Amino acid sequence: MSEPSIGICLLGCGVVGSGVVRILQQQADLIRRRTALDLKIQHVVVRQNDRPGIDVPYHHDAERAIDDPHTQIVVELIGGLEPAGTFIQRALKLGKSVVTANKSLLAARGAELFSLARKHNACIAFEASCAGGIPIINALLHGLVANRIDALVGIVNGTCNFILTRMTRNGWSYTNALAEAQKAGFAEANPTMDVSGRDAAQKLSILAGLAFNVAVNEADIHTEGIENLQETDIQFARELGYVIKLLAIARRHGEKISLCVHPTLVHEDDLLADVSGSFNAISVYGHALGHALFYGRGAGQMPTASAVVADLINIALGTTPLAFKQLHMLADQVPPASVLPHQELTSRYYLRLMARDEPGVLAQVTKILGDKRISLSAILQHEANDGQHVPVVITTHQAREGSVQAALKDIDALSSIQPPTVCLRIIDQPKEFSTQ
Amino acid sequence: MSEPSIGICLLGCGVVGSGVVRILQQQADLIRRRTALDLKIQHVVVRQNDRPGIDVPYHHDAERAIDDPHTQIVVELIGGLEPAGTFIQRALKLGKSVVTANKSLLAARGAELFSLARKHNACIAFEASCAGGIPIINALLHGLVANRIDALVGIVNGTCNFILTRMTRNGWSYTNALAEAQKAGFAEANPTMDVSGRDAAQKLSILAGLAFNVAVNEADIHTEGIENLQETDIQFARELGYVIKLLAIARRHGEKISLCVHPTLVHEDDLLADVSGSFNAISVYGHALGHALFYGRGAGQMPTASAVVADLINIALGTTPLAFKQLHMLADQVPPASVLPHQELTSRYYLRLMARDEPGVLAQVTKILGDKRISLSAILQHEANDGQHVPVVITTHQAREGSVQAALKDIDALSSIQPPTVCLRIIDQPKEFSTQ
Repeated sequence: MSEPSIGICLLGCGVVGSGVVRILQQQADLIRRRTALDLKIQHVVVRQNDRPGIDVPYHHDAERAIDDPHTQIVVELIGGLEPAGTFIQRALKLGKSVVTANKSLLAARGAELFSLARKHNACIAFEASCAGGIPIINALLHGLVANRIDALVGIVNGTCNFILTRMTRNGWSYTNALAEAQKAGFAEANPTMDVSGRDAAQKLSILAGLAFNVAVNEADIHTEGIENLQETDIQFARELGYVIKLLAIARRHGEKISLCVHPTLVHEDDLLADVSGSFNAISVYGHALGHALFYGRGAGQMPTASAVVADLINIALGTTPLAFKQLHMLADQVPPASVLPHQELTSRYYLRLMARDEPGVLAQVTKILGDKRISLSAILQHEANDGQHVPVVITTHQAREGSVQAALKDIDALSSIQPPTVCLRIIDQPKEFSTQ
Repeated sequence: MSEPSIGICLLGCGVVGSGVVRILQQQADLIRRRTALDLKIQHVVVRQNDRPGIDVPYHHDAERAIDDPHTQIVVELIGGLEPAGTFIQRALKLGKSVVTANKSLLAARGAELFSLARKHNACIAFEASCAGGIPIINALLHGLVANRIDALVGIVNGTCNFILTRMTRNGWSYTNALAEAQKAGFAEANPTMDVSGRDAAQKLSILAGLAFNVAVNEADIHTEGIENLQETDIQFARELGYVIKLLAIARRHGEKISLCVHPTLVHEDDLLADVSGSFNAISVYGHALGHALFYGRGAGQMPTASAVVADLINIALGTTPLAFKQLHMLADQVPPASVLPHQELTSRYYLRLMARDEPGVLAQVTKILGDKRISLSAILQHEANDGQHVPVVITTHQAREGSVQAALKDIDALSSIQPPTVCLRIIDQPKEFSTQ
């Protein structure tokens, strides 16, 4: 073969790494035909006392593998901050480009690593870090580059979406749905990163950074998870024509942006409402493009491997290194995000109060809301059963987060209310979804 | 400014061209910040006796504009085969890269023009030729490059989708919906290219070529339009749980591919069923990625301009020229498609017969179908009103196209049937849409 052979070192060979090996082995012909490249696995490195998830020669010496002159590209699939960070630095300092799916590391130290790569004429590709196989990073860097992005609204955590789909469609409890997700391999034994919304926040920090050309600090993202979500709210939402999804939302407000991750009521006519199971989808609103949506598998062995191998190919072709050099959109080249304080955001709200079944309660509640200039859109109360407290659902028109939080404090202080009142945000069906 | 200034020549400045000028003027700062590029409009050329759709200096001398040493990239937005083809050739021969949205020209002469570009070390970018602002070309060339593509199913003609949405949601006739589309600017005065399915077939030839790495001849695409679609079939489809969409479908069958464009019954749970109005969407099934969907505005001034300016930027950055050179996926570098004859395709079918309201007709029809080994999935017949012929809707399990066509011939020859029997294909909800 006359194709230039590109030596690859895989650090970590668990689920995704095994998928990468499978694609490189089984699709070698296809890749050669499309790119005239021969991607050759030089090293597979796994932790001491560990074995790869696929039958492939391996060893435990990451430094030797990175340093090997035959290694041209390093794929980091270890995850976590260390030793992944140290290995990536080592590769970059040798001028070797890096492919990584490590959103935690990029969210924490992206700017520093990008800058190091630049210094040594290498690059970092990270398509697999957000939304698995969906080529959203590439879309933001290339396909949508002529657009001022106004908003980005995504379902970017497959675990949460799997759990919420089960709760919504099958009426399961959060606990049962989580157990099923763990059994199906969609949730870790310790699911905190996913269900707390933190994984989504890390992805949002990367995606919003690219969309708005700012460096986002994960700590600036208002993050709420799905751990406390109750079946009853999912049912009330459905009754009102909404589906609850964990959304990562970034919006432009003039020179500022807002950033949040929280369970959100999405109108059932919104395409995001139809994104089920472990799928991900990202709605992007560009000033010229209008609404676009990118949908696909956000996690899992082969979809993530699809993104990793695409990154490998695009580095080997030279297009990613060139874009890395020529574009000025990455975290080390952009100003820090100027983030709108969460209290100043406006949204529509879903409130569920547990009210004592006695006269005058609703009058007290609506007075509090009225005093804070929060106007009501709908009220839903079913005939009381025998309980002492009955759920009353209120949806509001657009209101300020700060006002709503202040009102909730007052409401929860009422003797007729059993705190805490549930407060969720509603995202309206964007105008773009009209039939025009 | 120290940014390198890139001279651009716009050939044609109608709706899309004006959008391109708007983005380049209004987003110059954004583009400069992201790319350190200064994209400068050197020439706007419009036809003799014509004026641009936006206030901008212009002239009528295309050759002078192309030849001008300050012109580095030529944007062809004239459309049609000539003089667009001659102008593009002229630019390429001077080593100037070309951006075009001209699907007709690419479908007819893509290979020849790509080859000419290669010879003169130039490139052709054509993101805007398919699905407007959706970066699907970029996705196929880069984001999904590690996947063997198994199928591509798209709504790629906004005019037809607008008409079908109106017919489905508002119960309008084809004629009224078309008139509305024309009034709203979504359909040309002569809508034949769109409603006949030909525009979709041209886009499919480009997209399938990239997906399967073959050169597709538009004549090999089995194409049916929406001109003869009747309201009654849209209503019956809905009753059965389907929505009718004009789909462009390319599938891999081993070494062969199948290519067709036709109105199709799409299950209402399929995301494609929710793509309304002038929006486009393309489902791609990759061996590693699984199902992905790209959704957005498939036409219109600013979405198309978004793709044109992205192409301009990616050429100026150098990434598109490099990919053009390094990838071996374009029509001039791939073998001709080996196309499965349409008669050999299998599908599920929707048949609507107009049967005389008398005993024994259904027995005759089902015998014909049974003899051709076409097995029925559902039958729908409402109580007859006073007409002489009543509609009978039959859906089938998977059957061979050739067998179905032969059966239809026999059925339409029955004295109890009023020909022609309507025959539409049903696309099943892919497994990928399950909640896993």
